[in-house]
Amino acid sequence: MDINLFDCISPLDFRYYGPVPRIFEKLSPYLSERARVAYELKVEVALVKVLARRGICSESVLEEIAKAAGEVTVEEVAQEEERIKHNIRALVNTLQSKVSPTARPYVHFTTTSFDIIDTATAARLRDCVLNVILPDCLQLERTLIALARREKDSLQMGRTHGQHAVPITFGFAVAEYVSRFGGRIEAIRNAANRLPGKISGAVGAYNASSIFFDDPEEFEREALAELGLKPAPHSTQIVEPEWLCDLAHAVVSAFGVLANFADDMRHLQRSEIAEVGEAFGKEQVGSSTMPHKRNPWNFENVKSMYKAFMPRMMTVYLDQISEHQRDLTNSASQRFLPEILAAFECCVDRLIQVCERLVIDAKAMRRNFEQSAAMVVAEPAYILLAAHGHPDAHEAVRLLTLNAQESKRPVTAIMEKSKDLKPYLDQFTPQQRAILADASKYTGIASQKAEAVCDLWEERLGLKE
Amino acid sequence: MDINLFDCISPLDFRYYGPVPRIFEKLSPYLSERARVAYELKVEVALVKVLARRGICSESVLEEIAKAAGEVTVEEVAQEEERIKHNIRALVNTLQSKVSPTARPYVHFTTTSFDIIDTATAARLRDCVLNVILPDCLQLERTLIALARREKDSLQMGRTHGQHAVPITFGFAVAEYVSRFGGRIEAIRNAANRLPGKISGAVGAYNASSIFFDDPEEFEREALAELGLKPAPHSTQIVEPEWLCDLAHAVVSAFGVLANFADDMRHLQRSEIAEVGEAFGKEQVGSSTMPHKRNPWNFENVKSMYKAFMPRMMTVYLDQISEHQRDLTNSASQRFLPEILAAFECCVDRLIQVCERLVIDAKAMRRNFEQSAAMVVAEPAYILLAAHGHPDAHEAVRLLTLNAQESKRPVTAIMEKSKDLKPYLDQFTPQQRAILADASKYTGIASQKAEAVCDLWEERLGLKE
Amino acid sequence: MDINLFDCISPLDFRYYGPVPRIFEKLSPYLSERARVAYELKVEVALVKVLARRGICSESVLEEIAKAAGEVTVEEVAQEEERIKHNIRALVNTLQSKVSPTARPYVHFTTTSFDIIDTATAARLRDCVLNVILPDCLQLERTLIALARREKDSLQMGRTHGQHAVPITFGFAVAEYVSRFGGRIEAIRNAANRLPGKISGAVGAYNASSIFFDDPEEFEREALAELGLKPAPHSTQIVEPEWLCDLAHAVVSAFGVLANFADDMRHLQRSEIAEVGEAFGKEQVGSSTMPHKRNPWNFENVKSMYKAFMPRMMTVYLDQISEHQRDLTNSASQRFLPEILAAFECCVDRLIQVCERLVIDAKAMRRNFEQSAAMVVAEPAYILLAAHGHPDAHEAVRLLTLNAQESKRPVTAIMEKSKDLKPYLDQFTPQQRAILADASKYTGIASQKAEAVCDLWEERLGLKE
Amino acid sequence: MDINLFDCISPLDFRYYGPVPRIFEKLSPYLSERARVAYELKVEVALVKVLARRGICSESVLEEIAKAAGEVTVEEVAQEEERIKHNIRALVNTLQSKVSPTARPYVHFTTTSFDIIDTATAARLRDCVLNVILPDCLQLERTLIALARREKDSLQMGRTHGQHAVPITFGFAVAEYVSRFGGRIEAIRNAANRLPGKISGAVGAYNASSIFFDDPEEFEREALAELGLKPAPHSTQIVEPEWLCDLAHAVVSAFGVLANFADDMRHLQRSEIAEVGEAFGKEQVGSSTMPHKRNPWNFENVKSMYKAFMPRMMTVYLDQISEHQRDLTNSASQRFLPEILAAFECCVDRLIQVCERLVIDAKAMRRNFEQSAAMVVAEPAYILLAAHGHPDAHEAVRLLTLNAQESKRPVTAIMEKSKDLKPYLDQFTPQQRAILADASKYTGIASQKAEAVCDLWEERLGLKE
Repeated sequence: MDINLFDCISPLDFRYYGPVPRIFEKLSPYLSERARVAYELKVEVALVKVLARRGICSESVLEEIAKAAGEVTVEEVAQEEERIKHNIRALVNTLQSKVSPTARPYVHFTTTSFDIIDTATAARLRDCVLNVILPDCLQLERTLIALARREKDSLQMGRTHGQHAVPITFGFAVAEYVSRFGGRIEAIRNAANRLPGKISGAVGAYNASSIFFDDPEEFEREALAELGLKPAPHSTQIVEPEWLCDLAHAVVSAFGVLANFADDMRHLQRSEIAEVGEAFGKEQVGSSTMPHKRNPWNFENVKSMYKAFMPRMMTVYLDQISEHQRDLTNSASQRFLPEILAAFECCVDRLIQVCERLVIDAKAMRRNFEQSAAMVVAEPAYILLAAHGHPDAHEAVRLLTLNAQESKRPVTAIMEKSKDLKPYLDQFTPQQRAILADASKYTGIASQKAEAVCDLWEERLGLKE
Repeated sequence: MDINLFDCISPLDFRYYGPVPRIFEKLSPYLSERARVAYELKVEVALVKVLARRGICSESVLEEIAKAAGEVTVEEVAQEEERIKHNIRALVNTLQSKVSPTARPYVHFTTTSFDIIDTATAARLRDCVLNVILPDCLQLERTLIALARREKDSLQMGRTHGQHAVPITFGFAVAEYVSRFGGRIEAIRNAANRLPGKISGAVGAYNASSIFFDDPEEFEREALAELGLKPAPHSTQIVEPEWLCDLAHAVVSAFGVLANFADDMRHLQRSEIAEVGEAFGKEQVGSSTMPHKRNPWNFENVKSMYKAFMPRMMTVYLDQISEHQRDLTNSASQRFLPEILAAFECCVDRLIQVCERLVIDAKAMRRNFEQSAAMVVAEPAYILLAAHGHPDAHEAVRLLTLNAQESKRPVTAIMEKSKDLKPYLDQFTPQQRAILADASKYTGIASQKAEAVCDLWEERLGLKE
Repeated sequence: MDINLFDCISPLDFRYYGPVPRIFEKLSPYLSERARVAYELKVEVALVKVLARRGICSESVLEEIAKAAGEVTVEEVAQEEERIKHNIRALVNTLQSKVSPTARPYVHFTTTSFDIIDTATAARLRDCVLNVILPDCLQLERTLIALARREKDSLQMGRTHGQHAVPITFGFAVAEYVSRFGGRIEAIRNAANRLPGKISGAVGAYNASSIFFDDPEEFEREALAELGLKPAPHSTQIVEPEWLCDLAHAVVSAFGVLANFADDMRHLQRSEIAEVGEAFGKEQVGSSTMPHKRNPWNFENVKSMYKAFMPRMMTVYLDQISEHQRDLTNSASQRFLPEILAAFECCVDRLIQVCERLVIDAKAMRRNFEQSAAMVVAEPAYILLAAHGHPDAHEAVRLLTLNAQESKRPVTAIMEKSKDLKPYLDQFTPQQRAILADASKYTGIASQKAEAVCDLWEERLGLKE
Repeated sequence: MDINLFDCISPLDFRYYGPVPRIFEKLSPYLSERARVAYELKVEVALVKVLARRGICSESVLEEIAKAAGEVTVEEVAQEEERIKHNIRALVNTLQSKVSPTARPYVHFTTTSFDIIDTATAARLRDCVLNVILPDCLQLERTLIALARREKDSLQMGRTHGQHAVPITFGFAVAEYVSRFGGRIEAIRNAANRLPGKISGAVGAYNASSIFFDDPEEFEREALAELGLKPAPHSTQIVEPEWLCDLAHAVVSAFGVLANFADDMRHLQRSEIAEVGEAFGKEQVGSSTMPHKRNPWNFENVKSMYKAFMPRMMTVYLDQISEHQRDLTNSASQRFLPEILAAFECCVDRLIQVCERLVIDAKAMRRNFEQSAAMVVAEPAYILLAAHGHPDAHEAVRLLTLNAQESKRPVTAIMEKSKDLKPYLDQFTPQQRAILADASKYTGIASQKAEAVCDLWEERLGLKE
């Protein structure tokens, strides 16, 4: 059952995952169909372990089934499914065909398909998050922290509405993403760790298992504990969908943080701004026809992947709805949910590469700052006038800036010539005058704040060691 | 500035909120534009309180400003905004116009518009959730718990894929929603309590406030504390958007739980099923042309409102992205976010009314159960055969059921005639035989589980007292 | 570059497309990466054809390039892209490497990457729609028409709000989908036929081509004509996105029609209703634990796929936005658009299989009808009373039905005993009395309408021959 | 039933529609609840007209009902609905209460609620589009055309990936939106004109009307013709949802075009680019704390409104699904659909105001162009080299640009010194050399194309007269 990568339809397969060994090796053990079957077998074995522990079957039955489970291949299961059109019964049949008649009855004992499917899904998504996605998120967080610390004193013009506002430092700007992405890492971790399983049978009332066990919920707890999972407070044929929904939300909203970061970096790479740049390989081509182009293609890719995957959250929300003790209309759709994790991982991986080699042009930052330095002092001027008692400071300074724009003279120069304002200016402290004289001093606590944010998240995410 | 309700464009205004005093009185103090201005004034006053405490302005300035804030009307602010096209400057101008020249400079001192806007939004949405939405959610939860307890032993056919599966009790079915809605109540409460504010100035670097305060973050903390809020770890011109995004997710996913419940109830009201019904008023008309109709219109409404509001989560996700220290493209869109809360509240309120008077037809439940009782025992039959050593029990019983369907005889009857199966049947315990003889006994632990789920959520949500 | 199908992440690849030869063979020539490269080569060759026709290059250069294009493999292109990180430059380099130095300059002459990409995309999506998707849609339409005609007289209870309303025929119910799906087929066909290409260079102003051609738009028209395409009224680096957006809308809204049909069939398969059924294979398993189950799994699959793919329309809308003469943030995301077509095709294919063998239970339809037959006459009773001058007929009949429900007597029986109503009843024609006596006659023109709708769409879609 | 505007929850009501007389007066007659009732009365009267024409009722009954319809107020209907909980029955009761017992039976004769509701919705949305939205769209289109023509020769740097690419003219850039918006105007017009009505009764089979009319479809056609509508090919209780869905798609995708335009304008207003600007009033405040700011707030608003409303298309898609002959789960949700039209109209109206006064800074455009003029010639240099036989022109020029960036010398200067390239350069025509010498000549046919696009759309949209 091989397929040539280039015959795949999903770009995720043929472009972002399949041909990139780094990504493939990480995700394949959790998100592929092969992984799905492997985890489902783990659940089947976990069940038999508890049966053996309780003396319902013998240890040798357990050994036999565990051994057989190691030999089941996804290919065999697919072949059996082709015949009987039911994926879990196919798994069970295949497993049973490899054990003795004595052992056969203990395979899938008292359980329904979705005991296996939902439990396996919880285990493999949690493992994928804890073993692959979170470590890479933390690596990206470390990279952002290093960047924020390194650039904490690099003067940059702060921008609101795309307009020069008042100055910050580039490290402060990066610290925004340290904080927001840090928060999302916590959200992803929490949601992954909370994913529950279920072994409660066809409609969740433990109908079958209660025939054999006095406390079927205890049987469920033990079996799930084998996989490091807990049961949800209630289940029907399926686990309560909100747990997966919370994980998807955590990942999608983290994707949003990355998309925002990517947008910021794209815009800072505009020809007229040119404050940051992606490092380009010597061989790399920017445009098929414009040999001079150096495009922010990695950041564009992240934004674009976000646009492809964020809307899939709608599917996750729609899948909350399943009629009565469940209908199957969430089956195919939920199969696509792991793609959200995979696409997110592709982007985290990409940003690690790009951010570790991000090129910062401090001169350009200074040049852009100088463009509006004279205007920027409007804010402290207005506030200082107000603080020293000017009753209508905002309006006074607004008129000053209109004057400055028309006359092309600095706001401070006009201010100092103003008879109306003199009484107030005379009261300003030297430090306050210094800011009006040199707008680059007007960065508030940008530098300290960048440091503090980095400290905070290193602490909260355990990045210090 | 009055508008006739029927000239409103938003159905939320003219149909679900405006003309329903119960809803209007609850939501208006938090979600209307009037409320917005009122909370923004609270923030402005909170700032002056800290200035006075720190001796930057006098107590009499504080008193003057606090008094003036109480007199500012939303109409005045709107009029000023009409003139200058800036909503917060309009608020500030209006407030300043009501105080002495001495007090004026201390209004809005060192802050930017979004210090006020984002902080006010956090406070009013949190208050709306804690004071209105959560109490109503808890009331609905109580109603569901009462229903689940009352019906915990009412036999009902469990359904998967719309097909009769194995039996449960109606109370167990309701307990699903006790649990899922309970979990969402916790998520909403947590998200609301975590909403942060900000007083960090135009780009979040405390540029202006650091001119006057040695520790501008302490100033921020004190001012926010006046409103019961904390600062986010980092802010730009705006608060990190993920906090609101988490609240919206909690509400939207809770809406999904209600939509699922509504769908279940709708289907249980189908003419052929008819197990539950909405109580109808004597005067109430079901159809303009079919006088015999009793439609599940309240449940349909909840599902429909869900379809109108769930997709708005996309807007919330898109609003995570704001360029650099912010662009304004999240301003208009974020104004619509409170509508999600309002629509959700309308549905919670509606479900309380409906569920308190929900009509259950136990006879219909029994009739529907009887329809498939004979077939239902296929599951325990298969499991018991397997447990007693039949090597291919699932297939054996599958063939039995085909036979049963064709011959219209009960599965158990055919089973008992089968020579192949006799050796296994002979080993069954009396209790096991009892289940095969009477499928209504095959409800697992549905009843206990319903009770346990109710106990759990009463405990976790503090509903016991 | 082979990948084992089970290592794919996309369920589309490993489950619904890759392992199903019927689907794979249809879609692979249009929607795979291999197809993408093949179509891009077609565009490159089309360009050289026009160059040769205009005498800019020789016929032998054309022959050389056309031959080389036939030899380029997707593997080679991928390898070159790996080296230079630009997919179209990689294609051009690979093609150039296979031709003489004389021919080389005429490869990709004056064009930019997206001249090739957007034109190839338009051609392959159009071909996929016209050659695969539309023929299958028409086959499904034929199947629905045959079903509607066959069942045009099969009495069925009409249902609104899940409640019995007034009777129809099952063929009339199917005709709804003949009409709605027919309309969508037209929409898909129109949108596919309108997809434009572009050969207007890096920013759409024909900068490069206008150096060589007096009428560069005529050059564009000729080159596109080789592929059966026309240019859009305007282009930048990319084709106006609305054309693809319209195609996606046509497909997504057609998906919605199928989802609605699937929902209807699911519900008609409910145990209590049981009017239709999917034919089950002898070997087929319905549930891993409940051997008696016959689930509507194909219809569930269609609804589920719809939930997975409908929200992707958001991505298509978001991709309308590209800054200035384009940014690349629609590149990765647009690569996923063909998946919408593929998923839709999977569902159309599935529904053809299922609908050709759909099992209709006329007895069950009659049984369900009988359940409410006595109540159903409420509507004609009210209307006839009104028509014969009763001033408050709706209210009179509403009270009758309440009475009927309480006393469990037929509405007509109560009506005939009523002194108030007698004067009106006496005026009824025999035909009108016949309807009140036998509600199964109250199907309006359901049967004729079913036929007429089938006739109409056979005509409009050219299905008659 | 008045509400203070500031107590509305919907920002659409309290901010963008209610307090803006220009918008309110336009939309209120079509999109308010009052308009809804008015159009429903029109449908009721249209029905009686046909009854009178066919002699089923007398002319005086028609006159009586038509007169009464003119007197029914939305307030009365709401009051009656409050009592009986059914909106159309309330309308019918109110209307009946104003006519004689003789006339009463002919009100709502043989019809079901959704005959009235869906027909009225089609008529009022069509009228809203044709009378308000399209005229304003055409006005915006005229404004864009005037802008494109005026600026057709204004040199501007073309940008891809936010990077300088090759030059265009600003008029050419605007022509993109003339074309894309023109196409959407056609789509909106077509979709609005196609909206069908229905008079086919409770389940669409003309059950009731066929008792009285030999050809109930002819009765339907006549009644709809009174409102300028046609029936859909098939209907159930409701009109096929795809017609409204197509209108919503046309509007939402047109909104996407405006959002893209708004984004482009926002970015061209960035401090570093500053090529265009929104005209600011003398009194207008840009920031509450930064008196020097001039933000692109109108364009930001358009993008933001787009983000709030585009996702609502999901609701429209979800509303395609209605079980059997309909369920009511599309009732509340569909009430919100007109808000999409209203929000779109608000943005069209806003853009007309802004674009008529858009400030263009030709000097800034020239300055930005000059920044990269020397690099821009890389594209024509590469193409000319290739055209004159250089076998590896793209690579040669790519290396040239790297050299140029390092040495800070113009590409052409380095090129002319190159011995390798001399043989090719010598073959260039004077015109070709002119482009290399002056990159501002390298605008292709930008100017003519801008004109041609304007001509085309003036013609197609009938804007010429």
